[in-house]
Amino acid sequence: MIPKTFLEPSAIALVGASHEPKKIGYQILKNLITGGFGGRIFPVNLKGGKILGRPVFKDLAAIRQKKGEVLVAIAIPAAAVLAEIEKAGRLGFKNIVIISAGFKESGPAGQVREAELKNLAAKYHLNILGPNCLGFINRAAKLNLSFAAADFSRQNFDTGLAFFSQSGALGSAFLDWSTERALGFRLFVSLGNKAVCSEIDFLEIALKDKNIKAVYLYLEGITAGPKLINLLSRLTLQKPVFVLKAGQTVAGSQAALSHTGSLVGSQTAVELGLHRAGAVILDDLDDFFASLEFFKPSVWQEAQKPELIIVSNAGGPAVLSADQAARLGFKLTVLDNKIIKELKKYLPVLTSFNNPLDLLGDADPKRYAQALEIILKQAPQAQVLVLLTAQTMTEPLATAQVIAKLAKKYPTRSLFASFIGGQALISAKAYLQTQRLACFPTPEMAIKAWQKLAVYLENRRGFKIYPLATSRPVKKVLPSGLFDYLASLQLLESYQIRTIKTTKCVSSHLKTIKFPVVLKAVGPSFVHKSDQGAVRLNLNSHRELALAVQDFHHRFASVLKNKLNYLVVQEMALAKQELILGFKRDPIFGPILMVGQGGIYSEIFKDVRFSLADLDLKHARELVSSLKIAPILRGARGQQAVDIQALVKALVALARLANDHLEIKELDINPLFAKARGIVATDVRIIV
Amino acid sequence: MIPKTFLEPSAIALVGASHEPKKIGYQILKNLITGGFGGRIFPVNLKGGKILGRPVFKDLAAIRQKKGEVLVAIAIPAAAVLAEIEKAGRLGFKNIVIISAGFKESGPAGQVREAELKNLAAKYHLNILGPNCLGFINRAAKLNLSFAAADFSRQNFDTGLAFFSQSGALGSAFLDWSTERALGFRLFVSLGNKAVCSEIDFLEIALKDKNIKAVYLYLEGITAGPKLINLLSRLTLQKPVFVLKAGQTVAGSQAALSHTGSLVGSQTAVELGLHRAGAVILDDLDDFFASLEFFKPSVWQEAQKPELIIVSNAGGPAVLSADQAARLGFKLTVLDNKIIKELKKYLPVLTSFNNPLDLLGDADPKRYAQALEIILKQAPQAQVLVLLTAQTMTEPLATAQVIAKLAKKYPTRSLFASFIGGQALISAKAYLQTQRLACFPTPEMAIKAWQKLAVYLENRRGFKIYPLATSRPVKKVLPSGLFDYLASLQLLESYQIRTIKTTKCVSSHLKTIKFPVVLKAVGPSFVHKSDQGAVRLNLNSHRELALAVQDFHHRFASVLKNKLNYLVVQEMALAKQELILGFKRDPIFGPILMVGQGGIYSEIFKDVRFSLADLDLKHARELVSSLKIAPILRGARGQQAVDIQALVKALVALARLANDHLEIKELDINPLFAKARGIVATDVRIIV
Repeated sequence: MIPKTFLEPSAIALVGASHEPKKIGYQILKNLITGGFGGRIFPVNLKGGKILGRPVFKDLAAIRQKKGEVLVAIAIPAAAVLAEIEKAGRLGFKNIVIISAGFKESGPAGQVREAELKNLAAKYHLNILGPNCLGFINRAAKLNLSFAAADFSRQNFDTGLAFFSQSGALGSAFLDWSTERALGFRLFVSLGNKAVCSEIDFLEIALKDKNIKAVYLYLEGITAGPKLINLLSRLTLQKPVFVLKAGQTVAGSQAALSHTGSLVGSQTAVELGLHRAGAVILDDLDDFFASLEFFKPSVWQEAQKPELIIVSNAGGPAVLSADQAARLGFKLTVLDNKIIKELKKYLPVLTSFNNPLDLLGDADPKRYAQALEIILKQAPQAQVLVLLTAQTMTEPLATAQVIAKLAKKYPTRSLFASFIGGQALISAKAYLQTQRLACFPTPEMAIKAWQKLAVYLENRRGFKIYPLATSRPVKKVLPSGLFDYLASLQLLESYQIRTIKTTKCVSSHLKTIKFPVVLKAVGPSFVHKSDQGAVRLNLNSHRELALAVQDFHHRFASVLKNKLNYLVVQEMALAKQELILGFKRDPIFGPILMVGQGGIYSEIFKDVRFSLADLDLKHARELVSSLKIAPILRGARGQQAVDIQALVKALVALARLANDHLEIKELDINPLFAKARGIVATDVRIIV
Repeated sequence: MIPKTFLEPSAIALVGASHEPKKIGYQILKNLITGGFGGRIFPVNLKGGKILGRPVFKDLAAIRQKKGEVLVAIAIPAAAVLAEIEKAGRLGFKNIVIISAGFKESGPAGQVREAELKNLAAKYHLNILGPNCLGFINRAAKLNLSFAAADFSRQNFDTGLAFFSQSGALGSAFLDWSTERALGFRLFVSLGNKAVCSEIDFLEIALKDKNIKAVYLYLEGITAGPKLINLLSRLTLQKPVFVLKAGQTVAGSQAALSHTGSLVGSQTAVELGLHRAGAVILDDLDDFFASLEFFKPSVWQEAQKPELIIVSNAGGPAVLSADQAARLGFKLTVLDNKIIKELKKYLPVLTSFNNPLDLLGDADPKRYAQALEIILKQAPQAQVLVLLTAQTMTEPLATAQVIAKLAKKYPTRSLFASFIGGQALISAKAYLQTQRLACFPTPEMAIKAWQKLAVYLENRRGFKIYPLATSRPVKKVLPSGLFDYLASLQLLESYQIRTIKTTKCVSSHLKTIKFPVVLKAVGPSFVHKSDQGAVRLNLNSHRELALAVQDFHHRFASVLKNKLNYLVVQEMALAKQELILGFKRDPIFGPILMVGQGGIYSEIFKDVRFSLADLDLKHARELVSSLKIAPILRGARGQQAVDIQALVKALVALARLANDHLEIKELDINPLFAKARGIVATDVRIIV
């Protein structure tokens, strides 16, 4: 937990303040002064003298202020950083920003340096941002502790945005974007290498700060999955969180040992986590900038029930807008009779009354004004997108003025635009910008950004905070590898997941078994039983069984000498619906549970659904219902309906098992047969 | 076929030339004069007088010029148009542009008017563009016959583009975009209602005009599918064609009677056709404008083997670029050793040598210049994307100048940029624009546009022109509805598609049949046999069959009185792999053939592939191989491999059948069983 004094220090010591204007240590000092920071600033440099009119201190030790309230910024070569941190720690400073690069990101020597940095942080209880970062900018405190320019005088409108970025460059682009639009964000933090403090710490601040209206996150790596999801889910209940996660398409690192393992992609956990947290997931930089555009009017948040009405002077773009809505899976509001009646009365020139509403190619500003006013009055829920292309009668600037006027008249309504074209729109677009009205280059981009916010608002209803699991010790320390087969079945049974009757293949055990049966060789030498020919289905008599056993003993003679390998006999399951249940433990996010179609098509159609470990009956039922094969499970196409409730219960039981048994890395129940009454697991594989 | 004189007339008669500057008839005249058209211009208006200094003719009849070389433009109220066309026809004019609206688009009266217009066109052999259009602009002839402004003096650089647009507004946006960027297109045609001439006519012109380097098409409706595909495929062999098709997501209009029918979506035919034609399919307006950006340098076409190398001063955007490449399914070129060696030699500051190449946050213009020069020299195939965000040491304008200099030095190489941010980039972006270098707001947009061109180039190799089928008469006129069951099986057999042994359920026929058998009730009352309980599988003896027949006669007594309904007995197919083969005849594109997984999962996983009617063995094999279940068909997951060659042959035979029998609207073979040797159709449904 970062103290308030970190982002709002009473003084700042800048170690590495430089006399040379091209150096970062000079830039930072300049930014601190230009930004208008109210507290004292202590430039620190062995050379002493004055920089930008400020007297320079030769050593941190010379600073006589309450140490906990002084933020130490470090911008010196990497090789000198650790000594300075040690000194700061000894002197009693607590809050540090390390701008310097040359740590984890720079190779083996840097990795060692970063590890030592962590040790120092632990030793002196230091809050450290960085290393290898741009710094941070707290606009509310007029504090620009970074080497990026941020013209606060231009950024005179508070959007209430906070942006926490693992990329300094993207932070720069964001600041630059804000400056062009004369928009002020609230807080920008360049996270750097996240050696000590991470997004977690700053999200906690965003959670408490009522002035932060929306949070943007750019992440490349995630370290504390469940904590992040918990925090994000608490945040998204209050304000939207937008996450751009890079490195999404990196191929999985190692081959999985189970089907579940191979079906849980390397990104499944991240996507699942962010989705569970209710975050708005941004696909790319187009999404990033488009969503930012919405914080100009900052009123969309008020909408209880998102509805979109589009008006246009351009038929083609209107059709393309309808295409985009359909592609994104939502329906444009149908104009109600009140609106149509008014439109017909005041705008008799119109010929059709659909959404998008076609104002026709010769629409002048007055026609736009009349149509928009009718919609704003008669559809109090609707958000309105105004499309315009410059045609012969079009007056782009005057139309922009109409929009601005209506935006003032209806300050709680969201009115945004897409002006499509070039030369003829320049002044109109510039005008919309000065009025801080959102304008997108294309309707498709506007609609996508709008829809992401609409989905966020919809998901927020009935949203539950992701629980932080109390950490449990690993129950048993087992040798890593395949868990014993019969013990695996017993483990499932102990969680009320029914398994098929199975016995060791010893003649005394076989009396109670009912034919037909299955013979399997199991154990560490039979990881891929089917492919190894170590499964014989449908044995109908003691004689057939005996022959199969003889064959196995012959073929697997050498490995069966190892007592960990043995033969089992199972009753045949006669149900038809093969399912797969399982989980894979993600190193960051914990167990990822999976349910789906089993059998030969499982890895072909990948009809599986995933969940994090906080799985309850309701969510489990939703997962099963959202499977493509759900209609088949319910009895479509002449199939017998199966016991979905039993399946759902088994899935929740598996989640409990996953949460209890931290030693299990992967677990596969494949197949699990769903029957008219109950389910039965007929094969299991547990990797510990 | 439109004559050359249409787009390059020696004179123009403008019926509806107006004295009022706000009217379209005045605008057009002004555009004709301002554009600098070299031929004579005859304003026509009953009022006479002078407009813009030009003497006005009271009647078309007064014009004494070679009629075939005069283009008549009509901009008068709809009600007066037909009389004027009749007159023009009688006088011997051939080429007409109708700007006036008030036809098909405006309701029933307009539809009648448009039908009459078509009759007049046929009567007098008129070439008519429109009605309800903006006109056209032939920049090469300095001819702006439209009411859209197009400043030719600003558009002084010839991109060689032609744009044929069914939306006037989108045409305006395109002209406006061109003007802002000071880019000249070659030809713009607003297609309007396409009452007589359509995109087909203008594509034929684009095919012959070597000065047209690329073609853009915006379409809402398509009338002549095969002709369009044929023409587009001839064009794409020469130059890229970009198609934005609106109205893509409209729901299908009526429920299909067959599985094939329900699996062939309303847009399948259009997508299939455009893909078959080798066109670059644009998803939306973002795609549209992004792809246009590439015609600034206009050199990408030279690349034989598209390779992309990205250099960046920004780590985050570089990672996002790699994500985008992976998402689009292509691999960024790996930097080869020569390049890495040179980079290490001349830029020792760099720490990694991947693609994207990270020039680090403090990259100055010199570093950009060195890296780019090395890449351009050492990777002669590569196209290069330059990323930049404004960081402390960044000099955006000077870096833009570096790019411009290198673009001049390597004129046949494609060098394009994405400068990401705002305020700090304004002058650099403006500079790139004056230099006509492509610059995108985000790398993702740049990469997507690049990749679409790369795919186009790749597809062009070994590309075949889509054949124009010689039109065949419908063989038999049949009452519409379900085709007789036994006749359907016979029809398949006559095309060498093997069917299961089937006989009418008459005792004398049953002697030759082998048990187990299937009993089915077939005929117009049994369109959904399975759901109606009209199929009994696995009957093992004469006794079981007799009982089933008794049951059917009891349950279906009333409908079986109709002789078109009857019972059949079929041998049971014992193969396991159920497939579906079929076709649906699209009213615009002709038969859409389909092959895929059959059985209960067919409509769940929709693992089906489609083709137009020009299906040969090679393409059929590709379709089957691209099925998700292809590995299963080849024998994966312990399944028996099936006779893929027989399946492929059956598909090609079905294409022949579809091309021969124009009376068939839908045909379903479901299931068709694929066996270790051969295939066998066990059920068929033909809708005529």
